[in-house]
Amino acid sequence: MSKEISVVIWNENVHEQENELVRSIYPNGIHSAIAEGIGSLDTDSELRISTATLQEPEHGLTEERLAKTDVLIWWGHRAHGDVSEEVVDRVQKRVLQGMGLIVLHSGHFSKIFKRMMGTSCALKWREAGERERLWVTNHGHPITQGIGECIELENTEMYGEPFGIPAPDEQVFISWFEGGEVFRSGCCWHRGNGKIFYFRPGHETYPIYHNETIHRVIYNAVKWAYNPSRWTSVMDAPNVPVEKAPETIELKGGSVHADGEAGFR
Amino acid sequence: MSKEISVVIWNENVHEQENELVRSIYPNGIHSAIAEGIGSLDTDSELRISTATLQEPEHGLTEERLAKTDVLIWWGHRAHGDVSEEVVDRVQKRVLQGMGLIVLHSGHFSKIFKRMMGTSCALKWREAGERERLWVTNHGHPITQGIGECIELENTEMYGEPFGIPAPDEQVFISWFEGGEVFRSGCCWHRGNGKIFYFRPGHETYPIYHNETIHRVIYNAVKWAYNPSRWTSVMDAPNVPVEKAPETIELKGGSVHADGEAGFR
Amino acid sequence: MSKEISVVIWNENVHEQENELVRSIYPNGIHSAIAEGIGSLDTDSELRISTATLQEPEHGLTEERLAKTDVLIWWGHRAHGDVSEEVVDRVQKRVLQGMGLIVLHSGHFSKIFKRMMGTSCALKWREAGERERLWVTNHGHPITQGIGECIELENTEMYGEPFGIPAPDEQVFISWFEGGEVFRSGCCWHRGNGKIFYFRPGHETYPIYHNETIHRVIYNAVKWAYNPSRWTSVMDAPNVPVEKAPETIELKGGSVHADGEAGFR
Amino acid sequence: MSKEISVVIWNENVHEQENELVRSIYPNGIHSAIAEGIGSLDTDSELRISTATLQEPEHGLTEERLAKTDVLIWWGHRAHGDVSEEVVDRVQKRVLQGMGLIVLHSGHFSKIFKRMMGTSCALKWREAGERERLWVTNHGHPITQGIGECIELENTEMYGEPFGIPAPDEQVFISWFEGGEVFRSGCCWHRGNGKIFYFRPGHETYPIYHNETIHRVIYNAVKWAYNPSRWTSVMDAPNVPVEKAPETIELKGGSVHADGEAGFR
Repeated sequence: MSKEISVVIWNENVHEQENELVRSIYPNGIHSAIAEGIGSLDTDSELRISTATLQEPEHGLTEERLAKTDVLIWWGHRAHGDVSEEVVDRVQKRVLQGMGLIVLHSGHFSKIFKRMMGTSCALKWREAGERERLWVTNHGHPITQGIGECIELENTEMYGEPFGIPAPDEQVFISWFEGGEVFRSGCCWHRGNGKIFYFRPGHETYPIYHNETIHRVIYNAVKWAYNPSRWTSVMDAPNVPVEKAPETIELKGGSVHADGEAGFR
Repeated sequence: MSKEISVVIWNENVHEQENELVRSIYPNGIHSAIAEGIGSLDTDSELRISTATLQEPEHGLTEERLAKTDVLIWWGHRAHGDVSEEVVDRVQKRVLQGMGLIVLHSGHFSKIFKRMMGTSCALKWREAGERERLWVTNHGHPITQGIGECIELENTEMYGEPFGIPAPDEQVFISWFEGGEVFRSGCCWHRGNGKIFYFRPGHETYPIYHNETIHRVIYNAVKWAYNPSRWTSVMDAPNVPVEKAPETIELKGGSVHADGEAGFR
Repeated sequence: MSKEISVVIWNENVHEQENELVRSIYPNGIHSAIAEGIGSLDTDSELRISTATLQEPEHGLTEERLAKTDVLIWWGHRAHGDVSEEVVDRVQKRVLQGMGLIVLHSGHFSKIFKRMMGTSCALKWREAGERERLWVTNHGHPITQGIGECIELENTEMYGEPFGIPAPDEQVFISWFEGGEVFRSGCCWHRGNGKIFYFRPGHETYPIYHNETIHRVIYNAVKWAYNPSRWTSVMDAPNVPVEKAPETIELKGGSVHADGEAGFR
Repeated sequence: MSKEISVVIWNENVHEQENELVRSIYPNGIHSAIAEGIGSLDTDSELRISTATLQEPEHGLTEERLAKTDVLIWWGHRAHGDVSEEVVDRVQKRVLQGMGLIVLHSGHFSKIFKRMMGTSCALKWREAGERERLWVTNHGHPITQGIGECIELENTEMYGEPFGIPAPDEQVFISWFEGGEVFRSGCCWHRGNGKIFYFRPGHETYPIYHNETIHRVIYNAVKWAYNPSRWTSVMDAPNVPVEKAPETIELKGGSVHADGEAGFR
């Protein structure tokens, strides 16, 4: 197949190194589990999957690599603060240009998600291994294909409302928790030319990322978030000189800009 | 009248000091012109108006002052980069708690507006003193009361689409320019508990902020953006202990958090 | 107090006549229970509350009465089909002009709600008297003032996702149900100059509308939905003759309209 | 190519019969011009294009045909009132299930567009053959691929704001008119599982639908609006019996429904 979607799975990869329980569940890291999971669903070899981690130079997200990335999947939890502002700027720019961004679970507090949302991204939480049921709110949505009425997970960390996000453009999942709370678990936004999907499941002390239905959602989200067109000049704020105005006009009034000068930022 | 809306008009106040043309139009600064303008419309003395500038300690926006501010009006252009990140964090938090934010003209590239939007906030521009017509797109909206079908300004700087913003929750004005471009000139968003209004007119080399209709829009926007209720805990991400879950549950499975520990950020 | 908000509570008033259980709970009808409830919270006498029912001529919603109504509360269930299209047209027009509309519970399938939404408005349901918990998703929103973290109702009918609505402009409540489902229970939309609030609780076999917290939400919603400005010409599609164009233009090309003719509808 | 998108171009086909000028421009009808236009761009034969008109039995939109239609393009102007409610119900249901809907120009007042929007869909208009410039507001959007900064049309009917629509989920074009007005000319919405695109250009007295760039936009919109997944049960409101609740619950309290009875509509 000629069309190829380049997917990078990013993981801070800290708990897997430091916590025995997490390591026992994800011996090769959460990123590898996700890579295997969505890879196994890619029966027509449409995806080109790779991974990157916090520990690599530039966190594995150089300008060059991001320029070739179509969809970025983000897992972080303990080390949000260690991600450099420069890399966050870079990822934001690529999202606005058209790269898809899928943010998982505790990534709600990642710098990149907070950057894209502009809000608190806060929520309630409880780590009790309780039952969760993610209800599909749109059965026709590309992200929910192959999923039934809901996804049931026997052991999860609870995330509860209020979730500090802008109103989603599309709601795809809402969670019910055994302990009594609810959460907007699958949310879509458009920002610039990029599509963003937040997906709640995934605590590192449960084998969530070995679950096939969770793989299916992430796989579907990759295909939904993929945008073949790229708006490379999305950050530009060009001056249109008077002589290039679409309609003929004449210069009137004073200016704070010298001729040909760039605007202020 | 017992109800009082505390309004702070913030101005970077740089061009007025450095550029003779700007000083001749706004001898006391743009902030003073706006303060006088909206003050003269406040016939029932509902507003308590004050100003703040970049040059003051903490840019005049201390924790204490922001805590008492209901609506913040933002003008900046040349010195966006001089605004401290700490003050931006602070303003963002107050907006999410419920403070209204009105961003004017070149404030589209201010740190606080980019922070709240999460997008490029970019646009095209031309400083030719051309005619602009701001069309009202909702005649019943609180912000457009007392305005006719459109606002006509003889001399303005042009701002042209694409404007790099998330889709507005409500569109209030769209501009037509003599030179042939268009622009979403009045846009509303909800973020957390705060309301945000972007209003385009206002280049500093034209007497825009001495225009009564412009005063009217800003005055209306202040009243629209005012929210008497405050969500003080908007940034919190509280843990809900197992024994405080609304439904009785038992702890199952492992944890990455020690008992009583705060979540990661 | 000089400002007065005119509220009409509409009830199809059928189950109260036909079903003994419902009559025992709402002997004077659901409309009366709501009128008393929000009336008791109106300590500054801002509201002018009245009721209307299906059985009255024009369902109690004449042009004259609607013209004077600021906020309309809608309860219907069994007799949606008996509401005349003409009255639905009329209510829709007033909402677009600026009248607030609050739709309760089974009103999700009312003609007026389906008209305003354009979608299926469908949902799952179960009448088991189970526990419901409505979680506040924005603690600063005018509609949630005076409510705590959630509203707990011991016996309710379940409504489950998917709920066939356009993405809400603001999400205010999401429900958790004992039986395992979730639902978007408090949703806000802007349509034309009107504000619409859907609020889920309210089955007629439970004393939901005698619950003070429910009264509080409806009272708050009335004040939120109230818009003092009215866009009377909201349905007009006026021709702008060539000679009245804001910019001077000359007639070019052919026409399908005779001079002065109205547009096609 | 195995994937096939079934496109139906619907035209009321009245002006072409009655008005000599319109017939001279579109001798085979507007539907044929669009069919040829987008067909010529379909170089990989992905589209299966057909047409339907008001005059055919059931307006050419039988249940069977709609069930096989992926994207419906709608042109109407003079005969909106002649479209049967039954066909409108049918089209609405298919859109909610996942059929794309592209509404052109005067179709803003079609029954189906008003049905999907829930608003007035009103606008200002002037038939002066003036110049229009449609500015692209998102250069990366699938609908704007292959279009430059704007589309310039020498002779068009003017449509002016306010346009009585719900806030678009995505804004794609905004128009500038020689006579001084502006208009939201390309708007996207999600409703149920369907995507809706409104595209303004197209007055029947100008050869707009012979313009290649216009063909390109419609062709792009077809591909954007196409959704391979179908939510067939989108209109259903199923009862979930107590014994089938995801969590075990017991029946409590009274009921207005007999056992196994369908809900009220």
